[in-house]
Parts: sequence; C-alpha cells; structure tokens
Amino acid sequence: MRLEEIGEFGLIERIRQLVGEASTQVSLGIGDDGAIWQPAEGKDLVFSCDTQVEGRHFLPFDQHPWQDATSVGRRCVQVNVSDLAAMAAKPRFALVSLGLPKYCNVDDIEMMYRAIVDACQPCQLDIIGGNITSTSGPMFIDMTVAGEVERGQARLRGGAKVGDRIGVTGFPGTSAAALSCLLWQCETEQYDERWRALCRHYLAPTARWELGIRLGTLAHALIDISDGLFSDLGHVLGASGVGANLFRHSLPYASELLDYCQMRGIEADSFLMGASDDYELLLTATPEASEEISRICEEDGLALHWIGELTEERGIRLFDEEGEGELIEPRGWKHF
Amino acid sequence: MRLEEIGEFGLIERIRQLVGEASTQVSLGIGDDGAIWQPAEGKDLVFSCDTQVEGRHFLPFDQHPWQDATSVGRRCVQVNVSDLAAMAAKPRFALVSLGLPKYCNVDDIEMMYRAIVDACQPCQLDIIGGNITSTSGPMFIDMTVAGEVERGQARLRGGAKVGDRIGVTGFPGTSAAALSCLLWQCETEQYDERWRALCRHYLAPTARWELGIRLGTLAHALIDISDGLFSDLGHVLGASGVGANLFRHSLPYASELLDYCQMRGIEADSFLMGASDDYELLLTATPEASEEISRICEEDGLALHWIGELTEERGIRLFDEEGEGELIEPRGWKHF
Repeated sequence: MRLEEIGEFGLIERIRQLVGEASTQVSLGIGDDGAIWQPAEGKDLVFSCDTQVEGRHFLPFDQHPWQDATSVGRRCVQVNVSDLAAMAAKPRFALVSLGLPKYCNVDDIEMMYRAIVDACQPCQLDIIGGNITSTSGPMFIDMTVAGEVERGQARLRGGAKVGDRIGVTGFPGTSAAALSCLLWQCETEQYDERWRALCRHYLAPTARWELGIRLGTLAHALIDISDGLFSDLGHVLGASGVGANLFRHSLPYASELLDYCQMRGIEADSFLMGASDDYELLLTATPEASEEISRICEEDGLALHWIGELTEERGIRLFDEEGEGELIEPRGWKHF
Repeated sequence: MRLEEIGEFGLIERIRQLVGEASTQVSLGIGDDGAIWQPAEGKDLVFSCDTQVEGRHFLPFDQHPWQDATSVGRRCVQVNVSDLAAMAAKPRFALVSLGLPKYCNVDDIEMMYRAIVDACQPCQLDIIGGNITSTSGPMFIDMTVAGEVERGQARLRGGAKVGDRIGVTGFPGTSAAALSCLLWQCETEQYDERWRALCRHYLAPTARWELGIRLGTLAHALIDISDGLFSDLGHVLGASGVGANLFRHSLPYASELLDYCQMRGIEADSFLMGASDDYELLLTATPEASEEISRICEEDGLALHWIGELTEERGIRLFDEEGEGELIEPRGWKHF
C-alpha cells in the first residue's frame, strides 16, 4: 500500500496506536496542536536533535539485504539517545518528524516506526509528538529528544582537567569501516556473512545511555564520538583548554575492523582516527574515578579502554611503544 | 560563497553568533551534545514541531521576486509558534534542524537564519540548539518549539461545549488564495503589485501567540487553522463530541481574496472552506467569555469573527440568510 492511499491522518492514527501508553509526566501525547510535559522539580531538561537522511545516513531501503526499515528506525533512536548519554541525562521523551516521498510504502514506514517505538522502550523514551510532511526528495527522519538530569549535573565537553585519564567505550572507527564494507558489498554484489559483525556497528549501533546515567558526576567531561574519536576528543580539548597524550598500544582496534582492512588493503588508522559515526562515549576522569568507571563497565559487560591522559600542553600527541610522540591533526566528519 | 567552503562547523559558528544571548532558564545553549533548559516550578511545557520543505512549503529561493530567504525564515517561526498559541502556551525555546543541499549559498542560509532569529525575538523564543545535515534533495527546516503554560492550563481541541460560540481570527482561506496567486504569477511571469497584500498572507503570516497567551482559560477549545477552517473545526468537533451551526453571513471574506477570485473566476468558498494553511486561531467560548475575547481582540487590533455556535447534533451545518441549512463535509490539507 502506498502512502497516498491512507493519507497523513491515516498514518498518524496508525502511529498513535504504535506509540501506546506514556509516562505520567506526559499530560498529553499525540493528537492536539502540541504535546504537554510536566517537568519534575529539581531536574534540568537536556535537548538534542538529529536527522537521518536517506542516501546519506542510511541506504535506500532496497539497496542492501542487511538493512531494512527496522534497522533504520532503530538506528535513528540510538543516534539521538547517544547525545543524551553524552550529557549524562536519562532519556525521557521525543518528537519524531518524518519527511516522506509519496512513493513510500506504508508497510515500510510502519515497520520503521515500530522499530523506533521498540528502540525507545528499553530507555523509557516516550514519543509525545511529531510531524509528517511530504517531500519530493529523499526521505528524512528528524528526532528531537529530551532527557532529565539532576539540576546542574549534566556533563559537558568543557569539564576536562589536566591529569584526567581519557576513556572510550567500544571500538572507534568500526562504524566507518562498516559503512565502507556495506558500500563495497553493494558494488560487488557479494554479501559474505563473514562481514555481518562488522556491518552491525553501522546498521545497529547501541547508544551508551545506561552508562551515561550511571556515570553521573564520576566523569569530568563527556561527549559521544559521532564525528570520530580524534575529532570529538579535539572538541573536548578545545572546550576544556587542555591537550592530550595518547598511547598507540592502548588504542582499541576491533578484530573485525582489522580483518576488513587487511582484506581491502586499507590502513586501519584511517577509520580509527578519521570520521566515523560511532555512538560510543569518550570521557575524562581522575585516576581514582577511572577505576570506579572501569568497574561499572565491567559489571555492564561494556568494553572501555583508557587511551591516554590530559596535559597542560595543547594539541594531541600520539606516543608509540618506544615513547616517540607525534602531533596529530584531528579529522572528523564533514557534512559539506 | 557555497556551503561546502565553510563546512558544518563554520556554519554552526555563524549561527551561534546570530543567536546571541538567551533567557536565564537556558543553562546551556548551542555547542555541546545537548542544550539544557531549567524548567520553572508549577509550569507545564508544551511541545510541537513542524517542517518546511523547499518546493512544498515555500518556493525555491529564486522562483518569485516577493519571496526570499528572509520570508522563508520568518514564516518557519510563525508556523511553529502558531501551534503554541493554539495551546495558549507562551513561546520559550526552539531547536532548529536544517537539511541543506551542498549547492546552497551561505549568504542565503545566513539571511534565512537571521530572519528566524529576528522572528523569535518578539515572542522571546530562545534558539537553544539544532542540527545541520546535508541532503541531496530539497532543503528543509524542521523546528521543534516549546512553550510554557501554568500547570494544567493548556487549551485543547476537546474542550468545546454545546452552546459555545465559535470564533476565528483573521481571514481564513487567504493563505490558499495567496499561494494560488503566487503560482499563477510565476506561470504568467506578471508580478502586479495589486496582489501584494493578498500574497503576504502566505509569505508573511503572523501567528497569534499574543492572543493565545491572553486568552488563557477564557476559551474552552483552541486550535490553529493550519489545515483549513472547516477541517480544523472538524477536529475540534470530533475531539469534543459536538456539532456546529455556522452562519454564512458571518463568514469573513477578505476583500483581497474576493478580488482575486473574481479576476480568476474562482469560487471564494473553495479557499475559505478548503485546505489553507492560515496561522490563525479558531476558538470556542461561552457567550459571556466571547464578549471579553472580542474586547481583547479589539484592544490588540486583531480581526475576530464569531461565525457560529456549537450544537449537540453532530456535523457542520451552514445556514444561509433565509435560515436554510446544509450539511458540510470538511475538506482540509492533504499531504499525500
């Protein structure tokens, strides 16, 4: 069934049924000119928004057998929730704005929306409203998300202090490598199961919202590395007025990334140090707090690596095992 | 200068300078993973979002001499603020999400953003964050806006009561007539100043946020008529479980709309009763409250017409001067 057959209000009705019951702080959900949220006393609200555009942030629905409407919907939520995690805020509510071409298949849109709802559930993110419009161009999904945090306790980029250790969750660069692999698969039309695990880093990322909440004030600075590890580290350093020494032997290279790089003859560092939309957290903390953070991550079964430390001297220096340091120029995601 | 020359971060820096100082409830604005809002005690927050897509909600920048980047930016704010007005909420903050093709001219984007900032100022709407992404397709601007209202005091569609009078601000249908005129001008390449006033209804609407705030609890039900007068009246009736009698002689026909209809040989009712994105308010109120509302509108120099009353019997009946009634089928905006 094509979208024009059920129209905007038909789709809204289906979405309303998918969304279901909301938290008691949602006085009014989908269906009026606006939605109503009852803020809790003593809390701050953290807001962020992020857009996924067809052909830019996800492949058109029929282009790759491992990507469908479900993976697009799920990814969309993770991308947004990651920004709340990066402020140590608890996800609370969202507005979902869809731009849909007329040729859209209603089943695909419903499947995608169901995936959005399903991905919102574990982190208790209520969809309270949104918008649907038609577009002649590529489909897009713009989400605005809100999280709650104790007043004044949100973690910022600018809180890093000299002497802090620098930690990063997961395996930076794997999302960029996965996208490279997906596009290469489309080109060669070979979808070897061997690359499934790598591709999941792009197709099915998991935002670190649970860690974000648990970290609370343990971290001095917090950011997600959606622009790329080095680029986002650069944002923390810039905002905090400090520099960093990194240790090459501590950088976490995922085995699936190394396998892919070897097969294609690509330098692994081009992914790990370049633009990569990994929805992982970069944090800085005192050596004492970092031990507690390691314990939390171990408890949660979450990979965390301490890759360096903050210095008074500006810039990023990468040291090899012989203790030789080189100054690194951060390279991140370029939209234009 | 083209967008790719300054890049995403270059544009964000320009935007940050345009946005300037914010209210004290904005603990953190543009520049981190999220923005932080300090909710006030005893208030509810009302949220809404709306997208403007190039070629759909506004003409491409060089298509009509009366529309430029400034009018697009200004319109975008009005469209969004109108939803807050329709809940009787005071505009407070916004997130602005841009989808920009690479070919965009930076001057146009800056001009548009300056217009967004300028339009936010009178209603004290702070831009606290947003997103910028590239798109291969038409440009889009998705705004999420938040308003504040005393706890439990937001006005909904479902509050209308039998015996209420039905009021509407402005001149419904003028936006649709204006769009028709703009497209006709593009086609004939004749831009007669005679139609300037009509076209302003589409190019430069003014959301009724001041009235929304002043109305407070005086209105039983409130909605903006962005889908069309009859369609949105239908939404109020459906949500409230009532019907309406309308009086033809009370319907407000703008003289510029009548002139245009006469010149083109179009039925004026096709605009007034059809789909038209007028950012005006439709409200229902007791006969006593309606007098007070008339007084407020007169004070503010705002056109307000009482066009009918609510009945127990469902449906919309339109009565002519002889007292003959006919049942009307609401027709509104169809996105797909």
